[in-house]
Amino acid sequence: MALVFHERVGLQGRRISPFSWRIRYAFAHKGLDPQVVPTRFADVARIRALSGQDLVPIIEDDGRVVHDSWSIACHLEDRFPDRPSLFGAAAGRGAARLVNIWSDTMLSPAIRPQVSADFVRVIDPGDRDYFRRSRETQFGMTLEQFCSGRDAALPELSKVCTPVERTLSEQPFLAGDAPAYVDYIIFSVFQQARIGSPRDVLQLAPGMESTRAWRSRMVELHGGLGDRFAGYPTEDT
Amino acid sequence: MALVFHERVGLQGRRISPFSWRIRYAFAHKGLDPQVVPTRFADVARIRALSGQDLVPIIEDDGRVVHDSWSIACHLEDRFPDRPSLFGAAAGRGAARLVNIWSDTMLSPAIRPQVSADFVRVIDPGDRDYFRRSRETQFGMTLEQFCSGRDAALPELSKVCTPVERTLSEQPFLAGDAPAYVDYIIFSVFQQARIGSPRDVLQLAPGMESTRAWRSRMVELHGGLGDRFAGYPTEDT
Repeated sequence: MALVFHERVGLQGRRISPFSWRIRYAFAHKGLDPQVVPTRFADVARIRALSGQDLVPIIEDDGRVVHDSWSIACHLEDRFPDRPSLFGAAAGRGAARLVNIWSDTMLSPAIRPQVSADFVRVIDPGDRDYFRRSRETQFGMTLEQFCSGRDAALPELSKVCTPVERTLSEQPFLAGDAPAYVDYIIFSVFQQARIGSPRDVLQLAPGMESTRAWRSRMVELHGGLGDRFAGYPTEDT
Repeated sequence: MALVFHERVGLQGRRISPFSWRIRYAFAHKGLDPQVVPTRFADVARIRALSGQDLVPIIEDDGRVVHDSWSIACHLEDRFPDRPSLFGAAAGRGAARLVNIWSDTMLSPAIRPQVSADFVRVIDPGDRDYFRRSRETQFGMTLEQFCSGRDAALPELSKVCTPVERTLSEQPFLAGDAPAYVDYIIFSVFQQARIGSPRDVLQLAPGMESTRAWRSRMVELHGGLGDRFAGYPTEDT
């Protein structure tokens, strides 16, 4: 079996993509050990040739190419049904999809203004211009301008996170007593923030105690997977 | 087996509570036919004596009293494990809990200013004063004031519903190919709005086509369960 994982990397091999984190955890959950191909933004030509689009993560499974983190999770679930389930069952998969879309449309936009200006420092130096240019075009302003109101926006971040915080005040994982794909979805967003900024948004945003404790559990999971790679640089790099 | 379902009712037996709707659908999903005890707001003394608190739905299962819709759903799932699952499996249950809290903290507050002023009319006349007084105390204004900006608030409602709309543009039910408890959670909120106001919020709010089509499927489910009771009154009642 040839499993290949094209994974986004940043400065000095840092894992900086929430979408790649989801899949990294999904592989671990399934007990799978793919060959990893570290992928920079600069590698877009290779990615496009492989998959017909520009984004990672991508996996190759015996020659079949799958892109988009949700599609990859579904592929892994279907290909390895006898391994621990990512979704529970059909209904769990549907709900996880809703959580996935909530994360992408509500949570991520609330996190981005918190960390994007710092995040440049965990991008490979050769990718920083591209990253800055593409994001600043998207945001219509500089990254620094985009993040200038981040302290004032912390209560709004807490508000967006209310369902997560309250769920985690009731149960140790978003999937219940044990983690599953919904945990990986949400964790991936906080993991990117944790690695991409020296500010701990879960410390700074009010009332996020349960989410912060859960994040620590998630970091420790699968043999300390969340700390396997370097974090935010302490020296100028 | 003695199963009793204390269900909130409004004007002329209308089923007006989203939380009772979830449980009604959950019973149907499990193929269970409980004895129904219609419960008005005025019945609070009976409810308190039965359960030690004021809210319905409540179920009695061979003498055991369970209140709170989520607790009831979990109880039904555990008591009838060989019947169709409400959650899929352990992971699906966790995710459904997150959806449940999202619905309560994000979706419901966005729906309430759309329908609360109309909703008085589907309350039993004997309960209207109580309903109005308790809600107006909670909102700090009259119901009419609370709903006065509802047209202007429609785009905000669409924004809140983005994850639901996008999920349903991809799959027929929130739980995937077949409905499960996450569908019942979200449907219950729109069902209350549908029965509690002549305004169709899913028609008026922009970009809600997939959610509207799904709502029709939900209404038709289980033998047209969503239309089993009277809707919004067309005459003054």
